[in-house]
Amino acid sequence: MSPVQCTGNVRVPRLQREKLMASDQLTPDKWYTEIYPDDGAAFSLSIKDRIHEEQTEYQYLEIFETEKFGRLMTLDGLVMLTDRDNFIYHEMMTHPALFTHPDPKRVAVIGGGDCGCVKEVLKHPVESVIQIELDERVTRVSEEYFPGLCTGNSDPRASFEFTDGIKWMEQAGDGEYDIIIIDSTDPVGPALGLFSTEFYRTCHRALSDQGVLIAQSESPLFHQHIILDVNRNMKAAGFAHRAVLQFAQCVYPSGWWTATLASKAVAPTEFRETAAQDKDFDTSYYNAAIHRGAMAQPEFLRKQLAE
Amino acid sequence: MSPVQCTGNVRVPRLQREKLMASDQLTPDKWYTEIYPDDGAAFSLSIKDRIHEEQTEYQYLEIFETEKFGRLMTLDGLVMLTDRDNFIYHEMMTHPALFTHPDPKRVAVIGGGDCGCVKEVLKHPVESVIQIELDERVTRVSEEYFPGLCTGNSDPRASFEFTDGIKWMEQAGDGEYDIIIIDSTDPVGPALGLFSTEFYRTCHRALSDQGVLIAQSESPLFHQHIILDVNRNMKAAGFAHRAVLQFAQCVYPSGWWTATLASKAVAPTEFRETAAQDKDFDTSYYNAAIHRGAMAQPEFLRKQLAE
Repeated sequence: MSPVQCTGNVRVPRLQREKLMASDQLTPDKWYTEIYPDDGAAFSLSIKDRIHEEQTEYQYLEIFETEKFGRLMTLDGLVMLTDRDNFIYHEMMTHPALFTHPDPKRVAVIGGGDCGCVKEVLKHPVESVIQIELDERVTRVSEEYFPGLCTGNSDPRASFEFTDGIKWMEQAGDGEYDIIIIDSTDPVGPALGLFSTEFYRTCHRALSDQGVLIAQSESPLFHQHIILDVNRNMKAAGFAHRAVLQFAQCVYPSGWWTATLASKAVAPTEFRETAAQDKDFDTSYYNAAIHRGAMAQPEFLRKQLAE
Repeated sequence: MSPVQCTGNVRVPRLQREKLMASDQLTPDKWYTEIYPDDGAAFSLSIKDRIHEEQTEYQYLEIFETEKFGRLMTLDGLVMLTDRDNFIYHEMMTHPALFTHPDPKRVAVIGGGDCGCVKEVLKHPVESVIQIELDERVTRVSEEYFPGLCTGNSDPRASFEFTDGIKWMEQAGDGEYDIIIIDSTDPVGPALGLFSTEFYRTCHRALSDQGVLIAQSESPLFHQHIILDVNRNMKAAGFAHRAVLQFAQCVYPSGWWTATLASKAVAPTEFRETAAQDKDFDTSYYNAAIHRGAMAQPEFLRKQLAE
């Protein structure tokens, strides 16, 4: 690879939620850069080509072929996932919750339009998994450009609704789900409500007695206030237990990410560890030791969560 | 922060070990970018000013004031550390080794010129810690620009030698050290020998019967072959046990890093967990749960290490 020449393009900071195109962020020699303005940092991927773009009803959706990360999806110019490293995120957003509930049968995924969470959930003997994503185009484009994430879409246990996840959950029956997975974008704009006490309370009601919720909760280095808010809000919503799970995620801000698990009855430390050790399906990141290890809190976060 | 304008500067890939200046990698509006060419990715930090530069006998050394990461040190244009996130690396390079040995008294740090490892080691009741760094200027500049890392330098238990770490260890007595910490740069050029079976064998001889070695061993996402080589070489050198410890490190390639611990007698899982829980010193990242959790292997790495 030759050194990079940057000549006069404009790059656009993350969280500046206008309708932006990632392709505006490409240098002439094709580096896509996402800036984290609040943290004075940026991450870049080397791009071969843009292979899809469209303005959906909700956002600007682009797919790129990268040099070394397989395909990249961006929404309004922000990295959503790449082929190379999404396995960590999707496995950590699903298996810890499913191995915490004693017998999960009915699962809901809020957001998660790329279908990666549905795929992982279906590795378990669930009866049903429903994905409630606002933007149908994200799922249709994923089916075309990320077929590896959509291998479960034709499974008879899987169903798909393209509507507002908050309204959907408000209309759910009491105890309708054993697991709710909140695979959202950042807490700005339309996704903000997915981080609120009110929504967590709605989920609490829609979960069965031993129900488990898990939500992506941003970076321990860049967004500690969000992690603390999520924990406070989950507690206020009535969840008896919370646990922050940490893992690396190269293409997200700071390369370090969390999912926060909330449980109505089972303590997160009491997950089905033997079942996880004896699981009869393949994973690339998750295993029982990783599950337990991910719950260890960095000392600075442990102190903040204890306050 | 305004969007970034890139206008015609040249950025230089990591591992291209010529005498490079990080300041050549600054955009006119002061983004420092480090490219990881083998992995088609790059990481950038927003810079206020360069506050020091010099060509030492061995490398080009620069210090920058960043917008959000405190100070940044680069060597030959590559990120070594920042004020904001070096605590993770330095705590994970030291405390797991010191809490694995039953009673560590004599510690050697190979490399580690910024003195961050010495500082952490001195939190334990050791008798002595010696830092063997090739380039004295790294330590002198750290004393000036990273005083927070050098608070242990006047401790009577600390000593500093500025010479070749491999030769130093070859001349060490049998069993002279309880702990050896290899805080090296990447395995290219002068640091390559620090990753070899021969050097690990030298360290094995220089370690006491229950001696513990720990070495930085690069990224699980970008450098799996290095992690596997380090483990193979440590085994070939005679170490009874090895353990890969993983942790986030935002400013290093992929944001995900490892240290590999090798032990002559004590199994890494049998570390002094109660002592770690009851430690009488402050840390920001490390605690006993983090120590145990860091030893969990991602499934893809567990399979590769088992082969």
